[in-house]
Amino acid sequence: MASDIRTSELKSPIDVAEYLFRRLHEVGVRGVHGVPGDYNLVALDYIPKVGLKWVGNCNELNAGYAADGYARIKGISAVVTTFGVGELSLLNAIAGAYSEYVPIVHIVGTPSTLSQRDGMLLHHTLGNGNFEVFANMSQNISCAMAKLNDPHDAAGLIDNAIRECWVQSRPVYITLPTDMVQKKIEGDRLNTPIDLNYPKNPPEKEDYVVDVILKYLHEAKNPVILVDACAIRHRALDEVHKLVEKSRLPTFVAPMGKGAVNETLPNYGGVYAGTGSNEGVAERVESSDLVLTIGSIKSDFNTAGFTYRVSQLHTIDFHSTYMRVRYSEYPGVSMHGVLQKVTARMGKLNVQAGPAPDNKIAKKDQGMSQGELITHDWLWPRVGQWLEPNDIVITETGTANFGIWETKFPEGVTALSQVLWGSIGYSVGACQGAALAAKETGNRRTILFVGDGSFELTAQELSTMIRNDLKPIIFVICNEGYTIERYIHGMDATYNDIQQWNFKDLVAVFGADPKKSKTYQVRTKQEADNLFKDEDFSSAPYLQFVELYMPKEDAPRSLKGTAEASAKTNAKQ
Amino acid sequence: MASDIRTSELKSPIDVAEYLFRRLHEVGVRGVHGVPGDYNLVALDYIPKVGLKWVGNCNELNAGYAADGYARIKGISAVVTTFGVGELSLLNAIAGAYSEYVPIVHIVGTPSTLSQRDGMLLHHTLGNGNFEVFANMSQNISCAMAKLNDPHDAAGLIDNAIRECWVQSRPVYITLPTDMVQKKIEGDRLNTPIDLNYPKNPPEKEDYVVDVILKYLHEAKNPVILVDACAIRHRALDEVHKLVEKSRLPTFVAPMGKGAVNETLPNYGGVYAGTGSNEGVAERVESSDLVLTIGSIKSDFNTAGFTYRVSQLHTIDFHSTYMRVRYSEYPGVSMHGVLQKVTARMGKLNVQAGPAPDNKIAKKDQGMSQGELITHDWLWPRVGQWLEPNDIVITETGTANFGIWETKFPEGVTALSQVLWGSIGYSVGACQGAALAAKETGNRRTILFVGDGSFELTAQELSTMIRNDLKPIIFVICNEGYTIERYIHGMDATYNDIQQWNFKDLVAVFGADPKKSKTYQVRTKQEADNLFKDEDFSSAPYLQFVELYMPKEDAPRSLKGTAEASAKTNAKQ
Repeated sequence: MASDIRTSELKSPIDVAEYLFRRLHEVGVRGVHGVPGDYNLVALDYIPKVGLKWVGNCNELNAGYAADGYARIKGISAVVTTFGVGELSLLNAIAGAYSEYVPIVHIVGTPSTLSQRDGMLLHHTLGNGNFEVFANMSQNISCAMAKLNDPHDAAGLIDNAIRECWVQSRPVYITLPTDMVQKKIEGDRLNTPIDLNYPKNPPEKEDYVVDVILKYLHEAKNPVILVDACAIRHRALDEVHKLVEKSRLPTFVAPMGKGAVNETLPNYGGVYAGTGSNEGVAERVESSDLVLTIGSIKSDFNTAGFTYRVSQLHTIDFHSTYMRVRYSEYPGVSMHGVLQKVTARMGKLNVQAGPAPDNKIAKKDQGMSQGELITHDWLWPRVGQWLEPNDIVITETGTANFGIWETKFPEGVTALSQVLWGSIGYSVGACQGAALAAKETGNRRTILFVGDGSFELTAQELSTMIRNDLKPIIFVICNEGYTIERYIHGMDATYNDIQQWNFKDLVAVFGADPKKSKTYQVRTKQEADNLFKDEDFSSAPYLQFVELYMPKEDAPRSLKGTAEASAKTNAKQ
Repeated sequence: MASDIRTSELKSPIDVAEYLFRRLHEVGVRGVHGVPGDYNLVALDYIPKVGLKWVGNCNELNAGYAADGYARIKGISAVVTTFGVGELSLLNAIAGAYSEYVPIVHIVGTPSTLSQRDGMLLHHTLGNGNFEVFANMSQNISCAMAKLNDPHDAAGLIDNAIRECWVQSRPVYITLPTDMVQKKIEGDRLNTPIDLNYPKNPPEKEDYVVDVILKYLHEAKNPVILVDACAIRHRALDEVHKLVEKSRLPTFVAPMGKGAVNETLPNYGGVYAGTGSNEGVAERVESSDLVLTIGSIKSDFNTAGFTYRVSQLHTIDFHSTYMRVRYSEYPGVSMHGVLQKVTARMGKLNVQAGPAPDNKIAKKDQGMSQGELITHDWLWPRVGQWLEPNDIVITETGTANFGIWETKFPEGVTALSQVLWGSIGYSVGACQGAALAAKETGNRRTILFVGDGSFELTAQELSTMIRNDLKPIIFVICNEGYTIERYIHGMDATYNDIQQWNFKDLVAVFGADPKKSKTYQVRTKQEADNLFKDEDFSSAPYLQFVELYMPKEDAPRSLKGTAEASAKTNAKQ
């Protein structure tokens, strides 16, 4: 439709698709997730050309989850789908990324601009000539849109979308019509990298806020730090680490902030989530006279059912787009610069020690015996003893997402979960993406804990892990269904049951080489303990799959409280 | 939020959820598809109470596909999801139902009206307090919306949504907040069934159109009938059958109309799809001086790449909302009344015999020998010899959707496919829904043909078939990937490959009783022939799963032509 650019006008002609994929390579993408479809096939030819790898997922939703997991490790990701059928299948994953601030570049191969202009009655359409309807749906969950309908503005739209994706840390939506894939545009532009820097705060305003914060910080008698998800998602962990280390203030994390802080530091105190907090933590945080929250998201599941009990009068909130000191708000000031200056200028503070978290197993479980069932209060501290530095740990919405609150991490562990969006099945796709990212960045162990009910939604992505020769350790918690839902409503309802699978046999069904994979069943604490002590197992030499049996009605304490609060919120009249 | 209705004001108080499910029962729903989630759990308690059965799908997209398949057999279906995460996961299935005119009642359990009013930061939200965003997305692909936020209008909204769903034969969207589930409304209203009748045509206008049609019909020397999808979807098959039988005009079907006509009638002539037509059919249809098209959808895949060659000057189109005679349009007149009157008043017509379709296997294949590979040109006529009256045959987008054009059906066969929307993986979910509908209505055989690539998207719904004790015969065409895409672009591209699975072993993995299931592998024509001749197999006593091996690059002729046309459309500058 749009007029071509004359090739003679171009210094370094490059095809639109190649430009797009080279930009993705520039910002760190190596593996591209997605599913082929006839409106994206020609574009896919460019992926190997520019040094990228096509993952080839089993379906689009799983590809979206995988892109989410990959982005949480690598900083950004890309997923390619086809018009209509493909793109709609992963809206849930994109909405999750929007909700939880995960930067995914979603590229949709669409019918040609000519077909769209003529309103052709093509497959993958609603049959009504409306080619905008799917883009309109995605617009609700994208922080930028780039419809590449014209070679003249294609490069600018691509650069802008990738920048917004990175800076806002949210999904963007790019349509690539079939007749645009090979259109020539100026390649010289690639010599200037996309500017991914966050905008600087206005200096005078930033200094003003820093002075206010320091005033309250110096007055406080027992200040503490509480780190949450947005510190991770908006890439402020360097600033956070410096503040935590230099200030030596007692530091806690919200559940979604798990992994943001080096948990081996003496001033790390554990997870704060109201009544779901680690032992002793709620008392310490709630009695503090100044809580510095960094990147806080006070959602129901992140606060054990809104049981967060810290007065705003005693709070300073650090966010990506504003600061808040008690009730005074400072819009347009982001946490990054403020954290740097607060750390640099803080001087001497009042510091009281926080409670030290530990991985001790509760006493009643210490006398392990053969035949003793694995329970959540035993499992999660034990997992903490087994984890190694720099592990990636993915937990599924359900018992695992709450259990992990009781796991103390070694240094450098990254935790992936979807506590706010909470889509069951997410973790299996995310594990594929994270394991690929781990492989690209030097083989960090990638460990998944997923319940049997959730696993069944997205099970086939185990096949993609096998296909891509990834080496995750997958624990499927076999507890006969949707335990988190049982605690909200319907403890014995059949709708909370699932079909029982022979889960570990999937590894062979999905074509794994028996020499490059291994499966396990553990039914007792002793068996689990033996597995954790097995050095071969722990060295993660290849894909390993563990059926971990737990009682149907056992759940972490924090889940029980949160579920009870949810049921009450749902029923409130 | 909304004020309760005083129970003393109600003659027969009934809970909103019970009212909704009783209405669904009234219109013929028995199995309810979906996935439980905390915002719908309390509502699910009502399902068994009113005599419905909860299916319990593995994931929402598959549940949506299943609801689509179920509705195509039973006339309407219902699927229940939870807010955000659940509902977004099946938008692709709902869009497909919208595109292909399939009536699905989509019920979404949402947070309570109180939580929504207060903009609470709940799980399954975007974290921005916007509780309308998901409904807005669904509005694009729903023919009616019913937000049950107030007991006063809940019953009216439910009745209207179900009526619109039925009459427009498209999906509707109903939100059921947690605090509305148990609100009391008037149950007396249930004594008056929902009016599902189509609006009658204005009589004078209808007579006028009928006269015009009869004038052309009597002038025509060799008229023919071409039946397509909308005759099925808008429930005009009785009218079509009477016209076809009484007129004895040569009658053909478009691919999406397959199964609409009794193919054992002497005047049935086969599939018309331009250059993809059955042998001899294009010549016959295109030389006709008057084509009566009934419920036509001239999409690319339904016309073998827009190779439909019938002049509008020789065409009368029967549609659900308008009629068109040559270029004269008659809006507001539906096919039902017109077809009845045309049949009643037609008198004597010029009738020439059409070509008779057959199930003869092409000659080169008749000398079957052990070791000879199964090819599409052999398979599909052979399937026609094996099918039985009243079978339900589901074919997947891909080789099967094109191959079935060459299969002549016994009487009463229903064909399910998604030729317009074309979402791969659809057929596996649809098979679950269709097999359940078949079980409810008297055990029609339910037979699925799906390619290996497509099967991998939605494989876990095999588990749901096992869980619900369904007895489909599933053929997985093992041909190493996305063959339809290979023919569009990238014959040898790795992105068109898939991970090789041991498909049939899934039956055991998903927990089937070995005594109530059986698996097969067939690799040659002889083996396939033996299987088709096996009476135990053909009696469909339990779930049966067949790996059917075919060469990677073999495809039905009609697919090759359509794919080539698609590639050209995609590339056109």
